Amino acid sequence: MNYAIIGAGAIGAFYGAKLAKSGREVHFLFHSDYQEVKENGLNVKSVDGDFHLPKINAYDNVEKMPKCDIILVCLKTTANALLEKLLPPILKENSCVILIQNGLGIEKSVAEKFPNITVGGGLAFICSHKIGAGKVHHLDYGKITIGGLCGEKEVLQQICADFQNAGVEGEFAPDLNLARWKKLVWNVPFNGMSVVLKATTEEMMKNPSTRALIRDLMLEVRRGAAACGAEIPEKFIDEMMIYTDNMRPYLPSMRLDFDFKREMEIGAIYRNTISAAKENGVNLPKIEMLCQQLEFIQVENLK
Amino acid sequence: MNYAIIGAGAIGAFYGAKLAKSGREVHFLFHSDYQEVKENGLNVKSVDGDFHLPKINAYDNVEKMPKCDIILVCLKTTANALLEKLLPPILKENSCVILIQNGLGIEKSVAEKFPNITVGGGLAFICSHKIGAGKVHHLDYGKITIGGLCGEKEVLQQICADFQNAGVEGEFAPDLNLARWKKLVWNVPFNGMSVVLKATTEEMMKNPSTRALIRDLMLEVRRGAAACGAEIPEKFIDEMMIYTDNMRPYLPSMRLDFDFKREMEIGAIYRNTISAAKENGVNLPKIEMLCQQLEFIQVENLK
Repeated sequence: MNYAIIGAGAIGAFYGAKLAKSGREVHFLFHSDYQEVKENGLNVKSVDGDFHLPKINAYDNVEKMPKCDIILVCLKTTANALLEKLLPPILKENSCVILIQNGLGIEKSVAEKFPNITVGGGLAFICSHKIGAGKVHHLDYGKITIGGLCGEKEVLQQICADFQNAGVEGEFAPDLNLARWKKLVWNVPFNGMSVVLKATTEEMMKNPSTRALIRDLMLEVRRGAAACGAEIPEKFIDEMMIYTDNMRPYLPSMRLDFDFKREMEIGAIYRNTISAAKENGVNLPKIEMLCQQLEFIQVENLK
Repeated sequence: MNYAIIGAGAIGAFYGAKLAKSGREVHFLFHSDYQEVKENGLNVKSVDGDFHLPKINAYDNVEKMPKCDIILVCLKTTANALLEKLLPPILKENSCVILIQNGLGIEKSVAEKFPNITVGGGLAFICSHKIGAGKVHHLDYGKITIGGLCGEKEVLQQICADFQNAGVEGEFAPDLNLARWKKLVWNVPFNGMSVVLKATTEEMMKNPSTRALIRDLMLEVRRGAAACGAEIPEKFIDEMMIYTDNMRPYLPSMRLDFDFKREMEIGAIYRNTISAAKENGVNLPKIEMLCQQLEFIQVENLK
């Protein structure tokens, strides 16, 4: 099984580099870093040990790539419209596309456009960022959870095994819907609130008013999840609060997108979440308000 | 009937000056402007015509003031704890105290502390600000609505007549509770949102997401009002939207308090509103979220 990494940024380049280092055949699609990587390879600075891959299969155009068995999509969801052009040249008849992305409802929309392939989802629990062209800094965590929309268990478990073999905790999720909702429990409050209030996770957890609001938002995610058939125990909310209390102060990815004046993932993380709950008869007013505020901020920020 | 103005700022000094100019006996309590006003009087620049009162009854201490029949309290609600010291020296046996302030539940808390006097509420529909010591600029509107907690109709109507006589539209509100809730329909969305999003009324009305959110917040005020026995027709919400569309771009008072690092009136406008609805079994989630965000911003802003 060979791999393609579509979008070799802080997350894609890291996971791809780990797989390549472990002996897997990996083909990387780069954007602005292509020339640098072609000449000098990929550098990974990691809490698990630094390494350098002097020569990798780097491309700046999908047309030059071979067809691949496993395609890991590591773009932001805001770029998903590009997949209609990026995927066809590298698809085999039984390729498996894994969307390592945030939010809800994204597998369904890709599966609708490519009805003949397997589409799965990946959740990256990782803290990493780019520190230069072809240079990734992996600061903390690293687990990847992978699940599918229906009965594609075998290939997904094989991918998890490849990750394990590469020194990355790869976990197969039998219920992707539940896994995605559980990740939203953290992503919904902290991504949006860090933009609206221009605050770190720590500042918001320490103030009693925002601490209560964060919990309210988490409980709304739980209510939305339940409406969509994903049962999250209330204890999980408490665990996420404690987990965040113990985290180093952190700027969520949406805040970085805001700071660098990039489009924020409002659709995948907020609009799709609100719609999914509403389709099942449940309103999520505080999440909706956060979404409305973010939509205003986005317009002003991209002006 | 003589008048006292407690807190002669942009609103108190304007209304007091109009009453004094029309021949009423008015005693003004000043804070930082006292010396300037004592020497040079009060200047009013107004859309209804500028005027100057060279000599007024100005004080810097309530102990030096005479006892008054009508006491117009024009402080911010955030200073209401001071009333326990400010009121006793100027109270007669049958004084009437009118709180010309924002928010909900303030008359009740003053009436509890001074059980023997008449306490009423005033709603100022005015756009005015201070442009220097003893100098007020009245830019637009000016109506004052006055109502009471129970059967003190006669004296309140007399005050309204005094205002009319002074060239100020003075309206007696037979239902103060309803009048206060109706004012909250505008104050709740625009005061808080202008701080959280650092935006003008016009910017928020033009963006479809915040326009929808503003309407949602107004509808929550309406739901809270209904729970507290104040029936606001839905048509009133539409009228407030149109009214704001036609307003000049405007920074609400809470935004000015934020910009000048003064305490914001979160208690009177938000916490009391949320509590009143909750006591009657109704949650106002978006208003609560706005309150939670403001409480966070307040702490950071006053640091």
